Amino acid sequence: MNIVDIILDKRYGKELNYEQIMYFVKGVTARTIPDYQTSALLMAIVLNGMSEREMTALTLEMADSGVHDDLSYVGDVTVDKHSTGGVGDKITPIVMPLCNSFGTKIVKLSGRGLGFTGGTVDKFSSIEGFNIDVDKKDFPRLVKESGMVISSQTPSLAPADKILYALRDVTGTVDSIPLIASSIMSKKIAAGADAIVLDVTCGSGAFMQTEERARELASAMLKIGKLARKTTTAIITDMDQPLGRTCGNVIEMQEVFETLNGDGAEDVLDIASVIGAKMVKHSGKAGGLNDDELVIECRKRIGDGTALKEYIKLIRSQGGIIGDNGPVYKDEPVPVSEIKASRDGYIEAIRADEIGHASVMLGAGRVTKEDVIDLGAGIRFLKKRGDKVSKDDVLCILYTGKDSKIKDDKDHINDICQRIRKAYKISDSKPAERVSVIDVIGD
Amino acid sequence: MNIVDIILDKRYGKELNYEQIMYFVKGVTARTIPDYQTSALLMAIVLNGMSEREMTALTLEMADSGVHDDLSYVGDVTVDKHSTGGVGDKITPIVMPLCNSFGTKIVKLSGRGLGFTGGTVDKFSSIEGFNIDVDKKDFPRLVKESGMVISSQTPSLAPADKILYALRDVTGTVDSIPLIASSIMSKKIAAGADAIVLDVTCGSGAFMQTEERARELASAMLKIGKLARKTTTAIITDMDQPLGRTCGNVIEMQEVFETLNGDGAEDVLDIASVIGAKMVKHSGKAGGLNDDELVIECRKRIGDGTALKEYIKLIRSQGGIIGDNGPVYKDEPVPVSEIKASRDGYIEAIRADEIGHASVMLGAGRVTKEDVIDLGAGIRFLKKRGDKVSKDDVLCILYTGKDSKIKDDKDHINDICQRIRKAYKISDSKPAERVSVIDVIGD
Repeated sequence: MNIVDIILDKRYGKELNYEQIMYFVKGVTARTIPDYQTSALLMAIVLNGMSEREMTALTLEMADSGVHDDLSYVGDVTVDKHSTGGVGDKITPIVMPLCNSFGTKIVKLSGRGLGFTGGTVDKFSSIEGFNIDVDKKDFPRLVKESGMVISSQTPSLAPADKILYALRDVTGTVDSIPLIASSIMSKKIAAGADAIVLDVTCGSGAFMQTEERARELASAMLKIGKLARKTTTAIITDMDQPLGRTCGNVIEMQEVFETLNGDGAEDVLDIASVIGAKMVKHSGKAGGLNDDELVIECRKRIGDGTALKEYIKLIRSQGGIIGDNGPVYKDEPVPVSEIKASRDGYIEAIRADEIGHASVMLGAGRVTKEDVIDLGAGIRFLKKRGDKVSKDDVLCILYTGKDSKIKDDKDHINDICQRIRKAYKISDSKPAERVSVIDVIGD
Repeated sequence: MNIVDIILDKRYGKELNYEQIMYFVKGVTARTIPDYQTSALLMAIVLNGMSEREMTALTLEMADSGVHDDLSYVGDVTVDKHSTGGVGDKITPIVMPLCNSFGTKIVKLSGRGLGFTGGTVDKFSSIEGFNIDVDKKDFPRLVKESGMVISSQTPSLAPADKILYALRDVTGTVDSIPLIASSIMSKKIAAGADAIVLDVTCGSGAFMQTEERARELASAMLKIGKLARKTTTAIITDMDQPLGRTCGNVIEMQEVFETLNGDGAEDVLDIASVIGAKMVKHSGKAGGLNDDELVIECRKRIGDGTALKEYIKLIRSQGGIIGDNGPVYKDEPVPVSEIKASRDGYIEAIRADEIGHASVMLGAGRVTKEDVIDLGAGIRFLKKRGDKVSKDDVLCILYTGKDSKIKDDKDHINDICQRIRKAYKISDSKPAERVSVIDVIGD
């Protein structure tokens, strides 16, 4: 077997067999296949596609390229959750304690975010004292203590995916359903949970801009999940406007706390209760409730203090500090500007990608891995899609951290405001309602 | 401008503009664009194609990546010739002296062959004393003395093409009309001639297996030639069976000598006279003859001693030794085996690719650049397509050089014979005639 023949097969549209894909992934991991051959094959895959069998083979081989986490110490069915990302996505800190209130144990590994705002790891790390780099050997103790643990992802998890992803990023081969699906699923499979709930976002702030593409990606991941014998559900959710009332890091954790205190935004409540219900169900903790009842019960527990109790327990177990008014954060968002409505009307759209770029400009996200996030930076949305506004109503407030260098740079702040103004679209009539949970597919 | 955006544009099927292609070729030449990005772009080009404008831009930029040969010392219109290759292709050593007999001056740069048999350079180098690595500063003197010079190609000619070609070879991106066309044309343009005659071969022994693909390649090169303002002609020729009566190096030069002595094979005479006529015409030396008359005159001069006189002059001017029976060769082909007809009938086909592989197994060609060619190795065909044969008639004779190690390896010789037997197809009825010159297109 040799890599040129494998490239040629894919180039001419043939289906690669398991042995060919294994040869490729092993060669990538061992660094015996040079990058220039890997990138040629990746481009051929992007343009000629992959069958379900090819995708699954690629996924399983990437999962096997490093260590598989052994979650047997949990002593129960384990469930993992993944989101394809967006702006203001704070579902994980909500569903973890929610699920745990049913007895569902959660071991969550999460990457640091590259993009609009930090990842879940960055959000938790905005809590004073919270240890997000948990030693693997402490996982069993933490799961025993609080039923949950969240930690940054270790490099030993699916290293082939890491190598391929880095190469895709610089060779124009990121946007490919089979490559995205196998990248996500390889990490989930290596992370060892029995069941996987996927939040597949779509809209202007998501990687998949259209519902159609999101469905394609969901379908690809479900097929891989099935062939890999994992219970897998995909929830298609709306990410055309920012999720909830905030985007940033500290500011999103503040919203999480508000939500768990009974003051949650509708879209966050909708998505978190549907995802939470599926996770609880897959872990076998539904306790006789049917699907609809379980969603209602989840929604109730998010706001009635049940999930909050678990949330406080989680934070404390990983060293986070809880003060009189909830978690203590490393920074304090300071308002630097606000955006006002230019006219009377209804908010027709808030382009989440523009908001995301604006939040990166504020310092809330990373462009390169080396960038340091301003944990205090972010945006709070006072008006969302469908809301009626009068001229000069405040639409949203911009924040930076206390020590931000940006906040005194008037030109830069003006540029950001400009961008946000462009993101808001106000029209005369109320726009059609859009649901937050578009579909639930799979197991 | 950055290379990832260029890759993405091509990936999504957009036409690249001149600046993007210039950026790419300059980056490749300067080695500032890493191979893994280059190979991703090459694969995207292979799968999404290139427009005429893109091909031409790529060609001109690759030609500009090194020195352009200045042929002004010739003091006349210059014509170059290129063949896309095959088995038994000995047209160049015939047309060079032929054209020169009309006063057409030829400066020919040629690569060493990788493939079935050596290239034209290897064939000339099989003549004792012949200097094939001519110093550039000696070109004017040689052109003045004999009207011709042939030399191996210098690395300074289109270095970007050299880099891209090496990468294509290991990334499954060789077989692509726009990349092949621009590779060939970039070297021809950098070599500086005013007019170009392209011998585009097709059939089992050619790079383009079908007439349709050969026409596509010819058309692409003609378009580039036109946009680059070069007088360009493409001759589509048959390469489904080996050309002429021999393949190898010394043995092909022996056939050249036979041909120039009035004993030429029909296919060689057909192709050489049509190509020669176009070259003479483009150089302005047709002397009032129309196209048909010029072909007839060429055919006459190939066999009547006129071209032979120029050929002897060329060999002597580059140090080659002429003995009593013509050129003296560095080796003597020694017959090692012969293939006999398995039955009565007609030769329906001789698969040129199988013959080519057999000749490589005999030692006549290179697999890697480092391989040393056995100049004496080759095959002489006594029967060609359409010939009537009786059982046990000798179809062809296999030769090696005097010092070949292969000739005593019975198993290896048997394998070669097996391969050649498979290449010959004998059937009951006479096959339909096939012309050697399928079409003449362009200027």
